[in-house]
Amino acid sequence: MSISARPYIGSRDFYPDDMRFREWMFGVPRRICKTYGYGEYASPVLEPIELYTAKSSEEIVNEQLYRFTDRGDREVAIRPEMTPTLARMVAAKINSLTLPLRLYSIANFMRYERPGRGRLREFFQLNVDLLGSSSATADAEVMMIAVEILRSYGASDEHFMVRFSDRRLFDSFFSDLDRQTGRLVGRLLDKREKISSEEFDRALQEISTDPSLRDRIAEFISLRLEDLPPLAESGRLASDAVSHLLEVERLLADAVPKGVLSFDPGIVRGFDYYTGLIFEVYDNHPENNRALFGGGRYDRLLGIYGKQEVPAVGFGMGDVTLENFIRNHNLAPAEVAHPEGVYITLFSPELFGQGLRIASMLRQGGICAEVALEPTKKFGKQFEIAQKKGRRFALIVGEDEIAKGIVRVKDLQTGEQKDVVESELVSYLLPEDRIARK
Amino acid sequence: MSISARPYIGSRDFYPDDMRFREWMFGVPRRICKTYGYGEYASPVLEPIELYTAKSSEEIVNEQLYRFTDRGDREVAIRPEMTPTLARMVAAKINSLTLPLRLYSIANFMRYERPGRGRLREFFQLNVDLLGSSSATADAEVMMIAVEILRSYGASDEHFMVRFSDRRLFDSFFSDLDRQTGRLVGRLLDKREKISSEEFDRALQEISTDPSLRDRIAEFISLRLEDLPPLAESGRLASDAVSHLLEVERLLADAVPKGVLSFDPGIVRGFDYYTGLIFEVYDNHPENNRALFGGGRYDRLLGIYGKQEVPAVGFGMGDVTLENFIRNHNLAPAEVAHPEGVYITLFSPELFGQGLRIASMLRQGGICAEVALEPTKKFGKQFEIAQKKGRRFALIVGEDEIAKGIVRVKDLQTGEQKDVVESELVSYLLPEDRIARK
Repeated sequence: MSISARPYIGSRDFYPDDMRFREWMFGVPRRICKTYGYGEYASPVLEPIELYTAKSSEEIVNEQLYRFTDRGDREVAIRPEMTPTLARMVAAKINSLTLPLRLYSIANFMRYERPGRGRLREFFQLNVDLLGSSSATADAEVMMIAVEILRSYGASDEHFMVRFSDRRLFDSFFSDLDRQTGRLVGRLLDKREKISSEEFDRALQEISTDPSLRDRIAEFISLRLEDLPPLAESGRLASDAVSHLLEVERLLADAVPKGVLSFDPGIVRGFDYYTGLIFEVYDNHPENNRALFGGGRYDRLLGIYGKQEVPAVGFGMGDVTLENFIRNHNLAPAEVAHPEGVYITLFSPELFGQGLRIASMLRQGGICAEVALEPTKKFGKQFEIAQKKGRRFALIVGEDEIAKGIVRVKDLQTGEQKDVVESELVSYLLPEDRIARK
Repeated sequence: MSISARPYIGSRDFYPDDMRFREWMFGVPRRICKTYGYGEYASPVLEPIELYTAKSSEEIVNEQLYRFTDRGDREVAIRPEMTPTLARMVAAKINSLTLPLRLYSIANFMRYERPGRGRLREFFQLNVDLLGSSSATADAEVMMIAVEILRSYGASDEHFMVRFSDRRLFDSFFSDLDRQTGRLVGRLLDKREKISSEEFDRALQEISTDPSLRDRIAEFISLRLEDLPPLAESGRLASDAVSHLLEVERLLADAVPKGVLSFDPGIVRGFDYYTGLIFEVYDNHPENNRALFGGGRYDRLLGIYGKQEVPAVGFGMGDVTLENFIRNHNLAPAEVAHPEGVYITLFSPELFGQGLRIASMLRQGGICAEVALEPTKKFGKQFEIAQKKGRRFALIVGEDEIAKGIVRVKDLQTGEQKDVVESELVSYLLPEDRIARK
């Protein structure tokens, strides 16, 4: 009986062509994070279940968590997000870590979802977090990194928009609502761009019978940054949130044009652990006009480990929506589509040792070199393989050439052939070889 | 109630210090694989259970697999090794892939084991595989990569040894034993260096009452390479295995000294899917004299997907034993212990914007720069943080220096201070900064 060769539903196999894209895609933020002084961390794929029952969103815990009992009767889950793990890791070493802590990671996560566009069960996510500072400078830095990452893909400021707000604005503006009603109104706000205004009104009526609520929501979501200070003075908005937001906006003003950075009181983030600033990055592409990723401040997540609270701000950036963004705006460099290096073909089986010698010379020079393994195959057959592999160059090793100390180099993109002296081979190929240029 | 901050038993948190080591440790083989023309691939962390029940070792399936039923009633397992997945992936695309295929991956795996020295539940493994060629050149290439990786860590040929054999030698030499007895004798051979000769004899008597078996085992494990051809001629050993082994040895003779490459008929590999050449790399360190990693040929693993068989050879190299090897032989470069870049301290809060400007200039030059986020903190306090962080340099931004267009650079290793003109800052720091040199 034969078994299926398909990957588990909602997860993906990455072949080298896919992997080169993914490595490039995550290589960009990796470099940005490093230059901002962020250190990379990693964590186990399994976590104790309490990590999520304690503080994640209800939807994740009840419907999406991959959870099971291990052979030792421990309740565990495959991580569905990074933030609870990060909080755990920082809490575990809080006495030996130097604050502020700048951290990033790139890891896989699993959520039991119905796979669809932009949504898979196993996905990868970059997480960027800054712990140990509650100041607006920290929020501004984290948002700036998000912007720099998109710019580093070659995205221009017309391609995206950063909307930001603060959880405390909503909480203070609607302080009369009980906790559960407030939460439902927040959820509804989050959905408002995906539903019609009739649907919105109907849903709102189910949440509350208060006739003034609809108008107050309309007032709230139309607030502009300049409306905030008077409302803070009159006590309708939390004044610490307002001054913090204005400070973040001021810190970013020079680096991010007004049209890109936009205050939007209507944004709400899904996780319950956010306590202050929240932001979402939107794709401006007409066919993908949606939130790409987002983040925010979570100042009270470490306490569940019985340690001191540590103020923190961060964001997570998933690979599926990010890849959509890159492909929609055509940002991937053409060279990502092709493997690096050369394929060495041999005119006769006796030349295998010579092929190895030349390969070794190239590798020491930093060039990728693959040698025909079955030189007994006809030269034409070897050459066909070289072409199918999509590498840039084929090298042809023949008796006459070896005797003269040269190698024939065929550019498989242009078809051009050139005899190159062995000692000059590396310097001839190097400028065209991407592994060396990395 | 507070919950534990410890990672799941047998798994590890990687903080930036650990991660720099791991990135360096896997960066070395990554580069070697690339220069040999191997393409990176990746796979889902969950696989359908059939992948392992079909062909992995019994011990793994029955005792070590992390298996559970998902919310859609599918039986799944967290991958315990890569080879079955690789076979699945290649089978799935066999019609569009160009053979020979050179592939590598670095991934995490889980096995339910009792955690101990060199053994964890979650571990990372490099896998290197060459598919589509049954020739000795393929086996020699894969073994050569294993050697090159160790050499690239700076290991000398005295540090390790490569022992190799062929499954078919054992099978032909003991062809009179039934399958189950043969398997048990193989397992016992595998353990022989870890137990006393009395224990060995006792275990052997439990397996078989054949009085000649003990002597035949002694004869078998003392076979040298030169003994093989006559035994092949007399029909006591499979002659195709013997000629293949001799060819592999000949191909490697120039590149690997005799003392490093050693024929050892007594090596046995745990997985049932091996069909030909097998090899193990041993650490020569007196306190860690054990197998570091190994691999072999598996020519009949793709058939279970109902597709054509594809000959294949490869090895897996786990991070735990590899790290022991590196640390025992003191091979990690000192710089791996320290984070890259500079920490920018500010003499007064008003200088924050200047700090950002200088940071941005450094980052564009490829240097990691972290800025003090709470410049309201006293300068001495900021400087203390810079020192604790273990970065190489602290930059001091002050009013007077800014006015003169200079920055004070303090080398935190030597204590030396120097005023550097802003425009020369990048070229002053760059040679000492590791991110740029990578």
